[in-house]
Amino acid sequence: MPIETDAIVVGAGPVGLFQTFYLGLQEVRAHVVDSLPHPGGQCFELYADKPIYDIPALPLCTGRELTERLLRQIEPFATGFHLEQQVSELQPRDDDRFDVATSTGTRFVAKAVVIAGGVGAFQPRRLKLDGLDPHRGTQLFEHAGTLHEHAGRRIVIVGGGEAAVMAAIDAAEAGASAPASITLIHRRDDLDAAATALERLRELRAAGRVAFLAGQPESIVEDGGRLAALGVLCTDGTTRTVPLDTLFVLLGWSPKLGPIADWGLALERKQLVVDTQRFETSTPGIFAVGDVTIYPGKQKLIVCGFHEATLAAFAIGERVWPDRAQPLQYTTTSTKLHKLLGVSPTLP
Amino acid sequence: MPIETDAIVVGAGPVGLFQTFYLGLQEVRAHVVDSLPHPGGQCFELYADKPIYDIPALPLCTGRELTERLLRQIEPFATGFHLEQQVSELQPRDDDRFDVATSTGTRFVAKAVVIAGGVGAFQPRRLKLDGLDPHRGTQLFEHAGTLHEHAGRRIVIVGGGEAAVMAAIDAAEAGASAPASITLIHRRDDLDAAATALERLRELRAAGRVAFLAGQPESIVEDGGRLAALGVLCTDGTTRTVPLDTLFVLLGWSPKLGPIADWGLALERKQLVVDTQRFETSTPGIFAVGDVTIYPGKQKLIVCGFHEATLAAFAIGERVWPDRAQPLQYTTTSTKLHKLLGVSPTLP
Repeated sequence: MPIETDAIVVGAGPVGLFQTFYLGLQEVRAHVVDSLPHPGGQCFELYADKPIYDIPALPLCTGRELTERLLRQIEPFATGFHLEQQVSELQPRDDDRFDVATSTGTRFVAKAVVIAGGVGAFQPRRLKLDGLDPHRGTQLFEHAGTLHEHAGRRIVIVGGGEAAVMAAIDAAEAGASAPASITLIHRRDDLDAAATALERLRELRAAGRVAFLAGQPESIVEDGGRLAALGVLCTDGTTRTVPLDTLFVLLGWSPKLGPIADWGLALERKQLVVDTQRFETSTPGIFAVGDVTIYPGKQKLIVCGFHEATLAAFAIGERVWPDRAQPLQYTTTSTKLHKLLGVSPTLP
Repeated sequence: MPIETDAIVVGAGPVGLFQTFYLGLQEVRAHVVDSLPHPGGQCFELYADKPIYDIPALPLCTGRELTERLLRQIEPFATGFHLEQQVSELQPRDDDRFDVATSTGTRFVAKAVVIAGGVGAFQPRRLKLDGLDPHRGTQLFEHAGTLHEHAGRRIVIVGGGEAAVMAAIDAAEAGASAPASITLIHRRDDLDAAATALERLRELRAAGRVAFLAGQPESIVEDGGRLAALGVLCTDGTTRTVPLDTLFVLLGWSPKLGPIADWGLALERKQLVVDTQRFETSTPGIFAVGDVTIYPGKQKLIVCGFHEATLAAFAIGERVWPDRAQPLQYTTTSTKLHKLLGVSPTLP
């Protein structure tokens, strides 16, 4: 049975989260879908621990802090989160609602859809090697989720960023469930992770618990249908064969516009065309906010997305509650909004 | 000599302050003018200690806190503040700049003007009594600034809010510079101030140091050209004559659009018509943001003003630096913006 709701927010980045907040103030129930395993979108994925200086009234915050603050702000509203899945289908129905389905099979019927899609749905960057893809899910993994299920096996981790370095350390420190061997492969000698993580990795390498190889994987070796080894062209010009049981490719995430491009919405330079009054796309009932949009004057800034989400929420409120008069109310003074937020009109 | 600058921001409310921040990121020098004695505008004047729930990523903050946060955010930029004065004149010049003058005689020549005027310039509410106005500045004051200059005199304070109650308490507790007598007059018995202030006032009344009268001033008594007494119609129906040397009328502030209406800018329902791309008024070089504006979809919300100020800052940046290419830069990654903000690219 599909989930019946008022609105689907596609994207759990900062703008999608604030969209959910403002929909809540409009008494519009919302479910949020995101391809990443956690809310925060690009901001969390790329800037979790980097400083952001231009969010109004937050002189300095990280992507992680911004995400946590927005999640706290939406707590009063019962928001359904559907993570690690992508909206793959969006079809208008005869009753002015939409059928929405995700890549993992979650289905919704919704009165409105807001695409807060940012730069696109984040997907793990793939290692492109002949014959590798069929091993996905059995011996090839593109996230570290199953890292601790490989006790006694030989694992190879490909990648040079935070995720790859942390996976190597976590695996080495897994005690009884540690793999038999851990090899980290990166195309260059220099890894990009926090100084403390790099220091710990140095210790583990010195202790012989993690091997490191600077080079580029260029082939696979199979044995009876199983992935048996990676062929690596090393930076010193030699070629090495690295035997393995399990391969983790942790090369980060890259955004793809994905199925959004196929929904028949007006696009301009791969961005969704919206008006500046309702932030509605060319299909009534489908709205778009944040970096995925284009309109005259558009700047890809979070502060602009917050405004876009606010006006979209008013328009969606009108769509969901067509008979309701909606004079603007303020959270400081409105008894109705205080009730929705579960707060008292005076300071706690 | 007038002050030569890039931009004048008319209004130091939250939107005017964030306008100044974003102009700073665009390397546009700004001076801010406001009629109130402190930054924060309506938000500080009316909501200083009231909770606001809908500023993105600030689940709860007061008007005071919002103001303080925005002031902290603009600290990297040398912003000139010109308070307790109103922009009274705005004239285009032949060189594409503007002559700007305030009610207290401050003069500017600026390349752009942004009106972040909110609901208008806040002006003290007046007590309208025949013959009272000529005493303004000698015996009649509409702010508490000179409260401590009346040692040994008989002062009367008209008003029932925080400002009036606090003025009565402050005067009574002024020690050697306390007035000879203090009479607080309000039209009703119930005063609107913090509980601790009301309790202190009760004590001062019980000790005979503050007199309170519930009633409406309806006439003045003069003696040799000087203001000698107020005639008050009391709530019990009697009329009392209250002798005085100095009268403080502290009835709060009320916003007035004021001179803005006279600058020949297109107005709709007393609001400034702007486009949604540059937030420019009908006169090129004069921009408007926040509650003073009107455009399709406009909502009078601080979050919308932040967006409007951001886009106006880009347009003003183009006006001030016409030959500069301006690709969008992010505060997280731009070395140039880090230099402007005086921060390092990594977390402090």
